[in-house]
Amino acid sequence: MSRRVYLDHNASTPVHPDVVAEMLPYFGERFGNPSSVHGFGREARAGVDLARERIATFLQVPADEVVFTSGGTESDNMALKGLAFARGKGHLITSKIEHHAVLRAAEWLETQGFGVTYVGVDEYGMVDPDEVKRALRPDTIGISIMHANSEAGTIQPVAAIGALAKERGIPFHVDAVQTFGKVAFDVSACGIDMLSFSGHKIYGPKGVAGFWVRKGTRLQSLQHGGDHERRRRAGTENVAGIVGFGKAVELRSRELKAEGERLTALRDRLWEGVRARVPDVRLNGHPTERLPGTANFSYRGVESESIVLGLDLKGIGVSAGSACTAGSVEPSYVLVAMGLPIDWAMGAVRSSLGRSTTAEDIDYVIESVEPIVRKLRAAMPVGA
Amino acid sequence: MSRRVYLDHNASTPVHPDVVAEMLPYFGERFGNPSSVHGFGREARAGVDLARERIATFLQVPADEVVFTSGGTESDNMALKGLAFARGKGHLITSKIEHHAVLRAAEWLETQGFGVTYVGVDEYGMVDPDEVKRALRPDTIGISIMHANSEAGTIQPVAAIGALAKERGIPFHVDAVQTFGKVAFDVSACGIDMLSFSGHKIYGPKGVAGFWVRKGTRLQSLQHGGDHERRRRAGTENVAGIVGFGKAVELRSRELKAEGERLTALRDRLWEGVRARVPDVRLNGHPTERLPGTANFSYRGVESESIVLGLDLKGIGVSAGSACTAGSVEPSYVLVAMGLPIDWAMGAVRSSLGRSTTAEDIDYVIESVEPIVRKLRAAMPVGA
Repeated sequence: MSRRVYLDHNASTPVHPDVVAEMLPYFGERFGNPSSVHGFGREARAGVDLARERIATFLQVPADEVVFTSGGTESDNMALKGLAFARGKGHLITSKIEHHAVLRAAEWLETQGFGVTYVGVDEYGMVDPDEVKRALRPDTIGISIMHANSEAGTIQPVAAIGALAKERGIPFHVDAVQTFGKVAFDVSACGIDMLSFSGHKIYGPKGVAGFWVRKGTRLQSLQHGGDHERRRRAGTENVAGIVGFGKAVELRSRELKAEGERLTALRDRLWEGVRARVPDVRLNGHPTERLPGTANFSYRGVESESIVLGLDLKGIGVSAGSACTAGSVEPSYVLVAMGLPIDWAMGAVRSSLGRSTTAEDIDYVIESVEPIVRKLRAAMPVGA
Repeated sequence: MSRRVYLDHNASTPVHPDVVAEMLPYFGERFGNPSSVHGFGREARAGVDLARERIATFLQVPADEVVFTSGGTESDNMALKGLAFARGKGHLITSKIEHHAVLRAAEWLETQGFGVTYVGVDEYGMVDPDEVKRALRPDTIGISIMHANSEAGTIQPVAAIGALAKERGIPFHVDAVQTFGKVAFDVSACGIDMLSFSGHKIYGPKGVAGFWVRKGTRLQSLQHGGDHERRRRAGTENVAGIVGFGKAVELRSRELKAEGERLTALRDRLWEGVRARVPDVRLNGHPTERLPGTANFSYRGVESESIVLGLDLKGIGVSAGSACTAGSVEPSYVLVAMGLPIDWAMGAVRSSLGRSTTAEDIDYVIESVEPIVRKLRAAMPVGA
């Protein structure tokens, strides 16, 4: 296979060469443990400090409010369980389309005696702030609403929800793994108290992420042990990973706006190209309030996995909107929450664009997908 | 400063160049998310699979019992909290000299209604299996005893404790972060059910570790989210880190024995050299049942931090046996548990040797430490 087109940037991204270059010395030369007081330790500590400063500058928050974690999943768990255990009991509000890291943490908290309300979304995958308001109870101890969903890409009205949370004095957590470094936003203007964000979605390494927590927010640690990260997250810091994460954020801050515009144009080119050639296709997610590079289309009556595999044979990497669970193919819980009929939900394919994506890539995908869908539809049993 | 001697390998190690070389392609070329079904994802998955196989081969366990985590601290938390929450209530046995990751997880479990017994150690830092036996209660749900303590280096009689645990059908967790890849042992012969082990202590990258759990051991997940790691640990895999960890283990398996003998000789050379030149010094930890490269000496009446800083000025990185907490210098809880008098405990300095350590390094340290201790003692106030 000669041509390879990667359109799965919401799943992960290649590490930027400048990020790798910045990480390398921290494997071999500046390898110390940042908790060590000697020179080897101080060199490693300096790398961690610089990364924290870079991220704090990007978020416009004090550096000592930034905590490094092992991934978005850990950050989300830290927020929900940290809030819950710091209070011992109470009620949380989240949405039906959150990442599993939030949903399953919330479900687990239900087994521990906490109450959880899961608000729904409209046909575009948007949470209604009024529904969050109606879900509030006197014992509500936290609200967790994601900034943008990885599948549909719809950007949530976090500022409106944040205002509501602030008014009631309830801590507000936002899972910004899909928007951090891609969409400009201001945590303070949005009334956010805790933010989850990750490195490997923005050309940083996997295995490192961030958690920002506003000073004064009562939170219990998830991982107990040493006094790392101002006692908020125990464990030896992933120094090279943290250094790379900081560099990745610095790089994003320079190209965020221009890259967002470029990807929005390419994303729309993909949709216009596909809808012009393929019948019975629809766009999932909000038409405009959506992640720049996210394009989720449903091909009615076709199984999305078959399209993903067909495109894979052409060297194209995209994602199925549905998840294989124990052999049975189920439609995406996100698309189901958006009210998509089953014959549409089963045929959802997400393309997520990134730095390497060109107009030629998009045109190649458009050319490739049409015959795949045509053949799959032709092969379907009569009446299926 | 021309010469630099790193003698803090129990804190962290430089990543082996072959490990870095094996990691590199997973940043830039094989950057996919292992959960993705397309070619980019499969390439990443293959890297994770190979690492798991290598570690399973080293441990002589089935590959599907090996779970990747973000660090030894996470693995330890996973063991204690996983055991506890899978049962809902009960009693745990651990020791007073465990790593903070075990101790503070246990203390937190006490706040959640679980019972914990912390067994003591003898003057060499050794746990007595009979004391573990006496601590057993009808509601004991787990035993967690480390393989070797990072400060004193004393190797615990885990086989005897494992036999006891097996006899009673109680799951046995061993924190082997300091012995894994350094000391040969057999998890099955030792009756171990869960093992914590880390990458950055054996020339692998920071931010990645392992957790081995014997099939059938009831354990709840610590981090909820996606179906990664057979649902035992949610979160996108740190692919490059895992690949590096696997390579580091493979490298260690080849040199473990010879390197252990070499470091034991150098460790003893250090002790003989220091005791011959410095008066009022003692060796902490077991004289023979001790980690090959660990040498913890107490210089009576001298503050260990002053020695560490003095050696740091000579380019030598060693560790103080005590931890600075909020400005106040307290003696090591490990040495206190070993019954070391305070004027000895305050003067403990740990050297931990590794791959790069040479006889010349050791002689340089011996030469350097003598005048430092002499001057510090001379500068002490009369009667102190």
